[in-house]
Amino acid sequence: MKKDKLRDNLFIYQREDLFRYGIDAVLLAHFSMGLKGKVLDLGTGSGIIPLLLSTSPGIEQITGLEYQKEALELAKKSVVDNGLTDRVTLVHGDLMKIEEYFEKESFTGLVSNPPYFEKGHGLSCQDLPREISRSEKVMDLEGLIRASSYLLRPKSPINLIYRPRRLAQLISLLTNYGLEPKTLRMVHPRRGKEANLVLLEAIKGGGRQLRILDPLFVYEEGDYSKETLKIYEELRML
Amino acid sequence: MKKDKLRDNLFIYQREDLFRYGIDAVLLAHFSMGLKGKVLDLGTGSGIIPLLLSTSPGIEQITGLEYQKEALELAKKSVVDNGLTDRVTLVHGDLMKIEEYFEKESFTGLVSNPPYFEKGHGLSCQDLPREISRSEKVMDLEGLIRASSYLLRPKSPINLIYRPRRLAQLISLLTNYGLEPKTLRMVHPRRGKEANLVLLEAIKGGGRQLRILDPLFVYEEGDYSKETLKIYEELRML
Repeated sequence: MKKDKLRDNLFIYQREDLFRYGIDAVLLAHFSMGLKGKVLDLGTGSGIIPLLLSTSPGIEQITGLEYQKEALELAKKSVVDNGLTDRVTLVHGDLMKIEEYFEKESFTGLVSNPPYFEKGHGLSCQDLPREISRSEKVMDLEGLIRASSYLLRPKSPINLIYRPRRLAQLISLLTNYGLEPKTLRMVHPRRGKEANLVLLEAIKGGGRQLRILDPLFVYEEGDYSKETLKIYEELRML
Repeated sequence: MKKDKLRDNLFIYQREDLFRYGIDAVLLAHFSMGLKGKVLDLGTGSGIIPLLLSTSPGIEQITGLEYQKEALELAKKSVVDNGLTDRVTLVHGDLMKIEEYFEKESFTGLVSNPPYFEKGHGLSCQDLPREISRSEKVMDLEGLIRASSYLLRPKSPINLIYRPRRLAQLISLLTNYGLEPKTLRMVHPRRGKEANLVLLEAIKGGGRQLRILDPLFVYEEGDYSKETLKIYEELRML
């Protein structure tokens, strides 16, 4: 187990052999700083999103749901040792049985960094815990969207980060479940390269008006770009 | 009637009071230079896309379908006076009755720059011909996608340019009609601004793998950017 500093007075426990947070979690946390009220992170892993959002002024309470017990134990230890038990709640559970854990329309904001691989694609049989967080054995995309539609209060947002590869399917599913895409931001490694991540905000029962923000180029001349540094700065991670 | 030069040995007739071509048509023509075989432009207006694509080496024959007779007359005159009658065909007709004009799966490529406004939104009762090309009185989005699915041969592409505002609906409709989005390119007026146009390629019966190309910034420091100039250059419009 490693203890990594996130910002002054905030750290996270991670394990080399388990899924560790990457820039996608940082970008999603930044994209979600404006969320308000009761917020749920679907598939919270070692708790990076709740930890980073625990100081967001609009958020009253943030809950992390995770199926993988090993990751959840790390997340719990981080929450306890950071003294955040009054703001962050962690729940062990399966998205496919969401009704067992939460009431309908009980959240005013959702966040998720779902696994990227399709069922039966790119999986190995070793390294199981890590595989679960990366694959969709436990959390398939449609299951995630269905659960989100159940959990969200009307007119409330869900924020996601995903791969471009399946963006069409994601948008189609969101639309079918009444979660209307409202904001997209493409993330490119650098100028001249294809996007490798997409930030997306959808609103339950929202109007049909999508905005596509200026893209983020993560690197510029080998270093983090000014925009990337600004994101880390606004999260107080610099 | 005005006669405007497009490139050496190519011009277009336009009318001030009718819809005239803009940068969206130029970007779509450029995006579509790789189309092959029998190509159809749905809602061709004064024929800008067939005229610009008439010299694309892979295209055997390009057809333009248009409902507005005044625009079609201009397009016909442009085709005749440019000596392109053997390469470009123009058809008067309504997308909603597409079966009356074309056989099923009779095209290996489609192009469309559909109207942007939703039914009952932003319409005035004056200036009718222009209003038709801008609105969806004649060509609604679902009708366009349904017709496209009918017209396209399996594994063949449709290229569209559209506004971000309704991109989610467009993607959802394409997916529902078996036209799988494969390539997106966002078009921003300049760095730091939201996208105001989106180029999209979908393949009939294609796999579910979307790529998001590097974005286009049209202007840079008040002038066309290098990338925009390259597009005009590759279309031989400079």
